[in-house]
Amino acid sequence: MNASIGRRLIRIEDADDPRVAPFRNIRERDLVGREQRFVAEGTVVLNVLADVHGKPGRPSAEMLLVLENRLAGIASLLDRFPDDVPLMVVPRPVMDEITGFPMHRGVLALGRVPDPVTGASLLSAMPESALVLVAVGISNHDNMGALFRNAAAFGADALLLDGQSCDPLYRKAIRVSVGHALRVPFAREQTPEALLGKLAAENFAILTLSPRGETTIEAVASTRRMAIVVGTEGEGLPAALLSRTSSVRIRQAPGVDSLNLATAAALALHDLALKMGRLG
Amino acid sequence: MNASIGRRLIRIEDADDPRVAPFRNIRERDLVGREQRFVAEGTVVLNVLADVHGKPGRPSAEMLLVLENRLAGIASLLDRFPDDVPLMVVPRPVMDEITGFPMHRGVLALGRVPDPVTGASLLSAMPESALVLVAVGISNHDNMGALFRNAAAFGADALLLDGQSCDPLYRKAIRVSVGHALRVPFAREQTPEALLGKLAAENFAILTLSPRGETTIEAVASTRRMAIVVGTEGEGLPAALLSRTSSVRIRQAPGVDSLNLATAAALALHDLALKMGRLG
Repeated sequence: MNASIGRRLIRIEDADDPRVAPFRNIRERDLVGREQRFVAEGTVVLNVLADVHGKPGRPSAEMLLVLENRLAGIASLLDRFPDDVPLMVVPRPVMDEITGFPMHRGVLALGRVPDPVTGASLLSAMPESALVLVAVGISNHDNMGALFRNAAAFGADALLLDGQSCDPLYRKAIRVSVGHALRVPFAREQTPEALLGKLAAENFAILTLSPRGETTIEAVASTRRMAIVVGTEGEGLPAALLSRTSSVRIRQAPGVDSLNLATAAALALHDLALKMGRLG
Repeated sequence: MNASIGRRLIRIEDADDPRVAPFRNIRERDLVGREQRFVAEGTVVLNVLADVHGKPGRPSAEMLLVLENRLAGIASLLDRFPDDVPLMVVPRPVMDEITGFPMHRGVLALGRVPDPVTGASLLSAMPESALVLVAVGISNHDNMGALFRNAAAFGADALLLDGQSCDPLYRKAIRVSVGHALRVPFAREQTPEALLGKLAAENFAILTLSPRGETTIEAVASTRRMAIVVGTEGEGLPAALLSRTSSVRIRQAPGVDSLNLATAAALALHDLALKMGRLG
């Protein structure tokens, strides 16, 4: 075993040990939320957490919890975290008792949420050429995670959320995002109107995505700053919002409206990012 | 209540009634498979089942199971099925006991799988201009369902699967496909080599999708018959397969490889379908 791991390794033999209390009964705690903390799981996600740890305004790791039989296999990942991040090591039965279910992934992190920023301050810090994804009323954690994953794929600079959208740092959303919920900056404004106001004030061209959009995404000319707004799959974006913006649609087979909202967002982001010269 | 529903309604008061035996303990039965039957759930999926019921080579409904308090609300859906499809009606506690978990959707169908067709016979029946999606080694039902959903969105004529890919008519795959697993024809060949051989014999241009593809999908010229092959997210397509075909990639932000495989397939299908003049 790697010596640097040995230095900060804390063996936990009792699930009631207060040092692992933040990991107790993960699923139930997911439901009630946490005070400025999140739980991340799995090596892919923890690699992203290691990437962003210590960067200003980004999430950081507070402690790690690892199955003892996984320790050697993930030593290089664990070594990416500084020594002041405690590393708790537990045998399998203790892990399952702590988390409250069989934890196949075997590696968890407790993270600290960065101080929230307003949409206005996030937007004012954007580069001159910027691409932003805006989520309105997205309450499903799978969809939220997928939006972050796709935003990262096509180099979006940030996500903006309304007050009805769920928490991107909920465990499942982080997992579905393959960690990009930790990487892509986001900010929240309470209403869609507030989001649109901030975007307009920062000279963003605002497109709303809808199966009934006026024009196709291919027909949109790119500008230096673009925002694409997506709503829920069932209800879609409020009519008032669509009527005040340029609504665009993804072309589908005649008579079909089949796209998942995160997939539709991916297609729109890909088209815009290509036009903006942002893709490899 | 609608009179035509009344005619074929069978009230079930006992979860052990043999007439509802095919719906017993749905989740456990999902794991072991069924003999040429599938279970579909929810109004969206059952609407697709009603669309395809009775069409040659398509899945058909054998019976329906509905919560009694949902009956009035979905009468128009139920009326879309012919009278010889039995309609079982149960109170909530009996439904939960039958299915083995709380069945929020409240409407289920037992369906019959159509007689399997070979990849060769499915391809030989394709129109002169055809677009086919090919799945190799896709063992995840979410991804399989999403592939069908995206195939429908962009008007693909069929899906071809290798022997390692999972069953598109597994309950969860049908649900994630929003029913399109029932609508889009599919066929299986045991090996990727067999799939490619059949496609080549029918004059399909074969593209393989990979983050390390030689060319971008935008650079591909369309032909009358095109097939796009996707593999698993982790391992991707076998190197031997990539080396024998034209490999294409979806352009992403520099240094990022973030796309879910079904999302990557959506981007490729959208590009090809646009070029082939297939989208509305």
